Amino acid sequence: MMNEQARASGILPDAALDQLFRGARTHNSFHGPVSDEQLHALYELMKWGPTSSNCQPARIVFLRSAEAKERLKPALSAGNRDKTVAAPVTAILAYDLNFYEHLPRLFSHNQSARSWFEGKADTPIHALRNGTLQGAYFIIAARALGLDCGPMSGFDHAKVDAAFFPDGRVKSNFLCNLGQGDPSQTFERLPRFGFDEVCRII
Amino acid sequence: MMNEQARASGILPDAALDQLFRGARTHNSFHGPVSDEQLHALYELMKWGPTSSNCQPARIVFLRSAEAKERLKPALSAGNRDKTVAAPVTAILAYDLNFYEHLPRLFSHNQSARSWFEGKADTPIHALRNGTLQGAYFIIAARALGLDCGPMSGFDHAKVDAAFFPDGRVKSNFLCNLGQGDPSQTFERLPRFGFDEVCRII
Repeated sequence: MMNEQARASGILPDAALDQLFRGARTHNSFHGPVSDEQLHALYELMKWGPTSSNCQPARIVFLRSAEAKERLKPALSAGNRDKTVAAPVTAILAYDLNFYEHLPRLFSHNQSARSWFEGKADTPIHALRNGTLQGAYFIIAARALGLDCGPMSGFDHAKVDAAFFPDGRVKSNFLCNLGQGDPSQTFERLPRFGFDEVCRII
Repeated sequence: MMNEQARASGILPDAALDQLFRGARTHNSFHGPVSDEQLHALYELMKWGPTSSNCQPARIVFLRSAEAKERLKPALSAGNRDKTVAAPVTAILAYDLNFYEHLPRLFSHNQSARSWFEGKADTPIHALRNGTLQGAYFIIAARALGLDCGPMSGFDHAKVDAAFFPDGRVKSNFLCNLGQGDPSQTFERLPRFGFDEVCRII
């Protein structure tokens, strides 16, 4: 599968690049099962992705039960409702605004790290940025483990936060349905920018 | 390399999971070369990662020349300065606040998509969230192509924006050094949260 030239260059085999990026699609219809073991494996893979000062603000709630899905339902936009209720698992990717409280342990070689964030005006931006990096690691890790994803930001954040994070320190970021996707139910692939439209080398 | 059980389950081979996540490290010392062809290949891979309404707000400037590195230098924190100037390439991952202008083309099946974002209070959050998802796709795509990464958010965003995005519509998000990393110059691996500390299944 991996030819010698690619192996020497460190490039993953085409089949892997296809599974992670080129052939992967946002799915709208899923079947299961998705086991708890798979959800643990997903976290155990995505957790290694880098964050600023190792701050790891991401918090994840996996909704599997009908009761949990019912709590989510009022927050979903009309176009996302039925497919989300039907998915084997829906993950709420969220982030902890008070992530800095853990830095004495997570970044233990520099005990001043907490002070870089506590009480600072741009700390919510750091939480969102790093929680979102982890959200993307989640998507790619799921694909690497053979799961299909349906990420969504079309929902009422305040309703999700009230229903699942009532203490106010954790904020919802995006949702992601998980399972085995039905390729016949994906939309037509949408265009991407060309390199020269969004990149420059100087 | 990929055993039959893993192949049937859709799980990538262990060597690929190691390269992308488990064995990958944030690097501090790099050697080259990093070719323009590799930078193009990196964009052509990361571009496939999903964004909300296909909005693709990420904008990337690859700094290769000594002159470009000099323009960046005053914005770098002391701890990031020398390693960044020395890296074969430093990418500025940024995002376009006016990304919605492109939605009539990028999300052409729904010509109202632009109106979901234009002039809305939370549009900068959408730009940051989706630009950051793309930033994480960039890191993982680079690793998939055999490049090592050194992502950093320790810099003066306003100075980078003034030096590289003077028109004000594009904002810097994070920096990422690229090249072949020297494993002897990485820091000790930092701890990650356990599943039960940051995840729940309900």
